[in-house]
Amino acid sequence: MSLELLTLTNPVFKSYTFWTGVLVIKMLAMALLTAIQRFKTKTFANQEDLMSPKLKVKFDDPNVERVRRAHRNDLENILPFFIIGLLYTLTNPNAFLAINLFRAVGIARIAHTLVYAVVVVPQPARALAFFVALLATAYMALQVIAAAAF
Amino acid sequence: MSLELLTLTNPVFKSYTFWTGVLVIKMLAMALLTAIQRFKTKTFANQEDLMSPKLKVKFDDPNVERVRRAHRNDLENILPFFIIGLLYTLTNPNAFLAINLFRAVGIARIAHTLVYAVVVVPQPARALAFFVALLATAYMALQVIAAAAF
Amino acid sequence: MSLELLTLTNPVFKSYTFWTGVLVIKMLAMALLTAIQRFKTKTFANQEDLMSPKLKVKFDDPNVERVRRAHRNDLENILPFFIIGLLYTLTNPNAFLAINLFRAVGIARIAHTLVYAVVVVPQPARALAFFVALLATAYMALQVIAAAAF
Repeated sequence: MSLELLTLTNPVFKSYTFWTGVLVIKMLAMALLTAIQRFKTKTFANQEDLMSPKLKVKFDDPNVERVRRAHRNDLENILPFFIIGLLYTLTNPNAFLAINLFRAVGIARIAHTLVYAVVVVPQPARALAFFVALLATAYMALQVIAAAAF
Repeated sequence: MSLELLTLTNPVFKSYTFWTGVLVIKMLAMALLTAIQRFKTKTFANQEDLMSPKLKVKFDDPNVERVRRAHRNDLENILPFFIIGLLYTLTNPNAFLAINLFRAVGIARIAHTLVYAVVVVPQPARALAFFVALLATAYMALQVIAAAAF
Repeated sequence: MSLELLTLTNPVFKSYTFWTGVLVIKMLAMALLTAIQRFKTKTFANQEDLMSPKLKVKFDDPNVERVRRAHRNDLENILPFFIIGLLYTLTNPNAFLAINLFRAVGIARIAHTLVYAVVVVPQPARALAFFVALLATAYMALQVIAAAAF
């Protein structure tokens, strides 16, 4: 049974795999977004990164720091989703619910990045995106705990 | 064989799954703990988060920063455990040892948060909690490397 | 089939497991590297960590911060690799390609740490190490998305 759970013939695993791939690409893109802001604002954190002898290391550019906060928020929320989504898939959940939970996390976290680090949108846009993904991840974690505890 | 290793009939996987679920919930709770400190001390990192036009963005509140350090320490230590615990389970380890290693990581990391970010307890409380989880994780990683290398 | 994919008789999984174990050890070692720099420079972030009543908390030592930046870069890049490498293995990829991709990520990320936080090497050393691992991880993520989407 576990056999079939981790193959792409299982629609739940297929959906988990798709959204995990998308969110990994999204996270890797944060590095490029940071680099763009660093070059635009000439803000480099290391001596060896300075492009010109006139530059100094700088840590407080608000545009760079904004992207870095969005990136750190990804680490805090997307990375736990990756493992709990996999374990949730292994509990053989209802496919309709599981697929929509993965979709909710995927779309909410892309929206979170857009309103935080690409075009700043007033609150509660970011808070909403944040909580949709958090609640979906927490629900999966509680289901995983329940399946393992009893 | 791998089939049974990733089902809840395998007591090692059951234990891994339980503690991973618990630690994911614990990590997600750090966001709420940070939010509580931010509202208590009126410390917000983004212009669009300011609740009143009199407030300014602020990055150096010691209570907020303490929770954020605890949270970052989780990223550094719990997230690697998630993947190595899964791979260690797939090496079919001694059940008694494996279950107690997972328990050690789970309890030590909860203790780490409590003494770091909830009630500050003098050292070596935090150092002890930190090293118990680190050593258990490092032991699993070495077992995984040994299983894969030979 | 999925059964055999996650056993050490599958050379792709064997290679993934080996490099994941190595990179977990590498990441845990960053904590020790940070601790060494903290004690050397007497830079502690918490009141309860101060070794002497004459010391004060300090957050801006360049040696400590350099190791912390290298460590954070690991979180941003190695942790997504862990999950995408596992899912890529489950897509049953060409063994030669997969093994060399894992090797590239493993060696590049070790090199990244060495030139960033152990012996500072002028650019483009760090940029090269960074991009080799990033591109290999992004390639795997795109393959995973393609496998799941069609």
